[in-house]
Amino acid sequence: MAKRIDPYMPTPADKFTFGLWTVGNPGADPFGKATRAVLSPAEIVDAIGEQGGAYGVNFHDNDLIPIDATPAEAAQIKKDFRAALRRHKLRVPMATTNLFSDPVFKDGAFTSNDAEVRAYAIHKTMNAMQLGAEFGAKFYVFWGGREGTESDATKDPVVATKRFREAIDFLCDYNKSQKFGYKFAFEAKPNEPRGHMYFSVTGSYLALIPTLKHPEMCGVNPEFAHETMAGLNFTHHVAQALEAGKLFHIDLNDQEIGRYDQDFRFGSVNYKAAFFLVKLLTDYKYKGPKHFDSHAYRQSDPKDVGHFARGSMRTYKILESKVEKFNKNRKIQSLLNKINRDNAKLSKLTRNFSKANAKALLATDFSREKMAKKSLPYEELDQLVFEFLNGA
Amino acid sequence: MAKRIDPYMPTPADKFTFGLWTVGNPGADPFGKATRAVLSPAEIVDAIGEQGGAYGVNFHDNDLIPIDATPAEAAQIKKDFRAALRRHKLRVPMATTNLFSDPVFKDGAFTSNDAEVRAYAIHKTMNAMQLGAEFGAKFYVFWGGREGTESDATKDPVVATKRFREAIDFLCDYNKSQKFGYKFAFEAKPNEPRGHMYFSVTGSYLALIPTLKHPEMCGVNPEFAHETMAGLNFTHHVAQALEAGKLFHIDLNDQEIGRYDQDFRFGSVNYKAAFFLVKLLTDYKYKGPKHFDSHAYRQSDPKDVGHFARGSMRTYKILESKVEKFNKNRKIQSLLNKINRDNAKLSKLTRNFSKANAKALLATDFSREKMAKKSLPYEELDQLVFEFLNGA
Amino acid sequence: MAKRIDPYMPTPADKFTFGLWTVGNPGADPFGKATRAVLSPAEIVDAIGEQGGAYGVNFHDNDLIPIDATPAEAAQIKKDFRAALRRHKLRVPMATTNLFSDPVFKDGAFTSNDAEVRAYAIHKTMNAMQLGAEFGAKFYVFWGGREGTESDATKDPVVATKRFREAIDFLCDYNKSQKFGYKFAFEAKPNEPRGHMYFSVTGSYLALIPTLKHPEMCGVNPEFAHETMAGLNFTHHVAQALEAGKLFHIDLNDQEIGRYDQDFRFGSVNYKAAFFLVKLLTDYKYKGPKHFDSHAYRQSDPKDVGHFARGSMRTYKILESKVEKFNKNRKIQSLLNKINRDNAKLSKLTRNFSKANAKALLATDFSREKMAKKSLPYEELDQLVFEFLNGA
Amino acid sequence: MAKRIDPYMPTPADKFTFGLWTVGNPGADPFGKATRAVLSPAEIVDAIGEQGGAYGVNFHDNDLIPIDATPAEAAQIKKDFRAALRRHKLRVPMATTNLFSDPVFKDGAFTSNDAEVRAYAIHKTMNAMQLGAEFGAKFYVFWGGREGTESDATKDPVVATKRFREAIDFLCDYNKSQKFGYKFAFEAKPNEPRGHMYFSVTGSYLALIPTLKHPEMCGVNPEFAHETMAGLNFTHHVAQALEAGKLFHIDLNDQEIGRYDQDFRFGSVNYKAAFFLVKLLTDYKYKGPKHFDSHAYRQSDPKDVGHFARGSMRTYKILESKVEKFNKNRKIQSLLNKINRDNAKLSKLTRNFSKANAKALLATDFSREKMAKKSLPYEELDQLVFEFLNGA
Repeated sequence: MAKRIDPYMPTPADKFTFGLWTVGNPGADPFGKATRAVLSPAEIVDAIGEQGGAYGVNFHDNDLIPIDATPAEAAQIKKDFRAALRRHKLRVPMATTNLFSDPVFKDGAFTSNDAEVRAYAIHKTMNAMQLGAEFGAKFYVFWGGREGTESDATKDPVVATKRFREAIDFLCDYNKSQKFGYKFAFEAKPNEPRGHMYFSVTGSYLALIPTLKHPEMCGVNPEFAHETMAGLNFTHHVAQALEAGKLFHIDLNDQEIGRYDQDFRFGSVNYKAAFFLVKLLTDYKYKGPKHFDSHAYRQSDPKDVGHFARGSMRTYKILESKVEKFNKNRKIQSLLNKINRDNAKLSKLTRNFSKANAKALLATDFSREKMAKKSLPYEELDQLVFEFLNGA
Repeated sequence: MAKRIDPYMPTPADKFTFGLWTVGNPGADPFGKATRAVLSPAEIVDAIGEQGGAYGVNFHDNDLIPIDATPAEAAQIKKDFRAALRRHKLRVPMATTNLFSDPVFKDGAFTSNDAEVRAYAIHKTMNAMQLGAEFGAKFYVFWGGREGTESDATKDPVVATKRFREAIDFLCDYNKSQKFGYKFAFEAKPNEPRGHMYFSVTGSYLALIPTLKHPEMCGVNPEFAHETMAGLNFTHHVAQALEAGKLFHIDLNDQEIGRYDQDFRFGSVNYKAAFFLVKLLTDYKYKGPKHFDSHAYRQSDPKDVGHFARGSMRTYKILESKVEKFNKNRKIQSLLNKINRDNAKLSKLTRNFSKANAKALLATDFSREKMAKKSLPYEELDQLVFEFLNGA
Repeated sequence: MAKRIDPYMPTPADKFTFGLWTVGNPGADPFGKATRAVLSPAEIVDAIGEQGGAYGVNFHDNDLIPIDATPAEAAQIKKDFRAALRRHKLRVPMATTNLFSDPVFKDGAFTSNDAEVRAYAIHKTMNAMQLGAEFGAKFYVFWGGREGTESDATKDPVVATKRFREAIDFLCDYNKSQKFGYKFAFEAKPNEPRGHMYFSVTGSYLALIPTLKHPEMCGVNPEFAHETMAGLNFTHHVAQALEAGKLFHIDLNDQEIGRYDQDFRFGSVNYKAAFFLVKLLTDYKYKGPKHFDSHAYRQSDPKDVGHFARGSMRTYKILESKVEKFNKNRKIQSLLNKINRDNAKLSKLTRNFSKANAKALLATDFSREKMAKKSLPYEELDQLVFEFLNGA
Repeated sequence: MAKRIDPYMPTPADKFTFGLWTVGNPGADPFGKATRAVLSPAEIVDAIGEQGGAYGVNFHDNDLIPIDATPAEAAQIKKDFRAALRRHKLRVPMATTNLFSDPVFKDGAFTSNDAEVRAYAIHKTMNAMQLGAEFGAKFYVFWGGREGTESDATKDPVVATKRFREAIDFLCDYNKSQKFGYKFAFEAKPNEPRGHMYFSVTGSYLALIPTLKHPEMCGVNPEFAHETMAGLNFTHHVAQALEAGKLFHIDLNDQEIGRYDQDFRFGSVNYKAAFFLVKLLTDYKYKGPKHFDSHAYRQSDPKDVGHFARGSMRTYKILESKVEKFNKNRKIQSLLNKINRDNAKLSKLTRNFSKANAKALLATDFSREKMAKKSLPYEELDQLVFEFLNGA
């Protein structure tokens, strides 16, 4: 059996990453206590490394260094963590700030109504950027976990936007000034833990970026579960970011629509949706990290957490291999060719405006009836996809 | 009683507008036939005018001129429509194109897989822009009713974005070339009639605009029901548009979260949400049209449609008057003042980056515990809002 | 290759049925006109019959006989329809009443605020039951398409329940009196076309049935899309009906959570959810009709409607064959055996109450820690399911 | 002004109750630590008592006695709790079991796949029933917080139903045997903390009850937030329970559709929905406890928690007073009278089946057109409701 190679075995070239808070998640939830032991950062790195094939480990500042650690404790943790990373040849591609757990942020960080809290949030982020840089992180993620409201009486949403921008502009300049070389990646979420969060979808951040002082430094980190919570098509949102050159980082997991944040294993709820995301990333040659921002079921023990981590990567590889086959599938491709109808003459007219093109276009005689009758065998195509994805 | 004046009586200065398709809606739905007679455009203008207080009437090209009308028929309809507008001193502030009803658009207009359909959609829009201009419209709305997919096998979302941009760039140039003077306003919607629509939320369009050839010409037309369908906070999305100077037009109605497009009377589902929207528009002095994109219940007869139209405007006026009182309410304002805590010294540090400011900020000693303990009486505030809004 | 037989070819023994309104759906929606020709009932039967393998065709009274048909027209339609059924050896297992399309039902049928409308709804159902009986239907479905409200000011929900019960009790007696031999099957739906519909989920009807005069005659007809619209787990709801012996009929289709009624092809949105439904029906030997209450995409032409119909049946067969393999899969079954832990001694105590059992149970010394530590490898299991379903 | 009495001051006759876990909620959530101190049961009773007007305090076994308390600790806690209750003249109308926090229940209690866990869950409930009885509780609530699945591979939903029934039948008998005199009240929830919970809506339990050994002992405890999470109309579900004589207890709070469990202050999201619930309870003279199963915002300090508790009761009283006015409002009542059309002759025919009635009904000549034309001024009515509720 020595020669049999698992075609879905991940390698560092796949750039699969996990957060300390994902594989290290102890299984607590609003209605129940932890079901797994809390692990040290180094132990989590070991757990990730032992699965084989991962590329890196990401952290929030306080995943690594508790908010109330002494300098000596911090130094020891960093040492152990660094050793574990080396042991497993894992990098730290991304870092981020925890601006949501501590009670100080109970009403927001960059958008808090309290100027002192806003200043502290920037201060904390500056330190956290320094920490990430020490480990070589090149992506810096911003998820505004507490930026929002339950009652709109409490905060002015226009003011909140301005406050958020001010903080980011400051931090972009700090990034330059310190030569950290970070790319900033904003992560949107519609709700939870706040009733309504600002910048609720990826598009909200794509819209913010051009209004920043350093738009070139900023992109997005869309998370599968977040658009999905609101019933939106995640792949479409990622596509807009990709097309704009702003897909810096991506968070993979799964989620059922219209409920609490589940952070399920990638692909575990809706295989078809996961497939079309992998297809987009593959077809458009996304090269950034693929971060699994998810955790094992609360029922899982440490061994099953391993299945969760391996399964996350395997699922991506399986879908990636399906993409390759999909793109070569004669029946499917022939249908797609049939469906995509070019028209060189008309396309030339509409590609760029000129008075002549406009005139010619206006003078064109279109037959609605004829156009409407052209065949679009989408049931045939989608049924083929079903049978293809199921291996039937 | 002659002197008693209704404080909620609308006037044209309020800029309330209705679409031909709203007051003229005959009450059909996917499961049932029309319950009201189909009215001519002139009859609809009469119905709107008779309520008193409206500012204008908007249309899709084919609300006014049926897609298969002869030139003679079109001329007669326009004449009658114009006379009715004059009769009631109503304007046409906004026009738009129907790119969704005809079977030719069954798989999209600007993003169709068929180049001929894409060209026809531009051609149709050019004609519709001409029609709107004849009636003095200054806002041109784009709602991509069929731009999307049911199965993501059928269309490439990156390509779709490019196709959409190409069409808009062409039409912006056409707008300039014809000196129509339109402001373009994009209207997002997450789904229905397509399973997933591109540019699903207002932010998606705000993100697209800076990538267009003529961003200055383009803004958004958010619709209350559309973000609400996805459970998002409409007011937050409008606030982002406002802050970016891109709120050109707005569609007011109501909707329950997570279901079919209901287009209910403004304020009829959630008074509190409607109040905070009116507050935002009032506080930030929004001056554009307030368009009621809604229709009466299917049970309503023409007289009840009148109640619907009057009620839409009255509700806005009632909430507007509540905003004024809210902003003067001593108890509420005193709580808000307490909640918003400035800190001149820290704000000065964070306002603009400099190495000195960064250094000073890093050196600041923050007490998390103290900050976390500052009072945020949000239950008290929100309960006050409840009692205020209910007149208790 | 002549001998190769398609293992997923349906046969009448599968009891797959289609409604006249499904394969005959012309593709209109709230935003667009029909994209396909309206077919006569006989033509629809032909279209179904030509796919091969179907068992039957179901109808609403007015799918077959337009509400305003003359007796002569009705007679001709019935004759043609009967001939088509015979031509294709198709039965009519189920019939139902259209109590939602005509404006008379705009505010409900059995629960209308108007006693005359309520009486007419019963009258119309009596006639429709007669029509179904003429074609041998044995299941009679009740979907209260207009029983509900948009504003709860308009109707008293307690009164509505009583009105609904009165109508059903009357019709059960009528069923007996006429010896139609129908089984009544109630179909729940949370919303659309009403803002909120009474008896919004399958459980609501299961709860109503024991309060009826003839509970034995009544069961449910759950529809995949309906519980799914509300984000509920359809399979769990079907399981409760099955366990109660009340699963008389089932409607298969697909739907994304939290949006308009999509009636997509079975299995086309979420393969995994469809699989576990088929598993439940297979494991518990459901023998009733499997009705595809769905329609082709609006883009489809008649040929593609054929793909839709065949695809619906194929998908079920594919999933059914996967169930068989799942139930034999050694790895999966071994995990399931491990997970399901019996305990003969304790089970004996809890199976039936007695003072002695209660005492013994209270005296039992349970170790929470030990129990909590038992392994539940649910990630491993669910990942196996993913790989199994994808044929990886 | 000394004589002015607050008309919205609650009294024990209102039967408002709070759970220990509501006013005592420390403000932790999945993304953040507690923002308020953990209080002892006696301290929570003090906090409730100090607001004035409450009727009682409810608990889960482990709200009162920690799961690992020694007998001596338990005795002391009970003593202090009892003293506090006396101090404030508060009762304990309801008790319940925590079958969800401890890791032992990570995959369910009564429906666990492990027979030992199932037995322990019954054992724990027996003890908890004893504890509730010591404090005079007469309602015993069952919320199956962990009864459900994330992946349907893990548990058979038919088996789960049977397991649940077995546990309840046992506990009903225990209730009788111990002469506790409890009424059992089942509380449904669609999801969270499980991906999908069994008995997901109130109707599911109403359907289960007639299949139990002691249906007369069992009813429901619907919770506003739970049906609302799934976008269902809570009032309709309560109405079905009321009509069936099964509304034993009710949980009041608020929630936005389609997201995590928010447990907001009653009435704080949607005033209109809250009003129609209070109207139902008032009109149908519901006499059971009105339990506020909610908690203050995470931003609130203890003083603001007081505002939350008082606000909850005040909101109910305000809405109750509005119901009284609504029922006397001449304009609204006159519209309602107009809308509800009786027809003595037809009602007599449909009330009870007889062959003669059936014949007469079939022979009745209905004019659909005439019936469809009868006026239903629902926009007028709903706009009146808006203006009425807003005090305009």
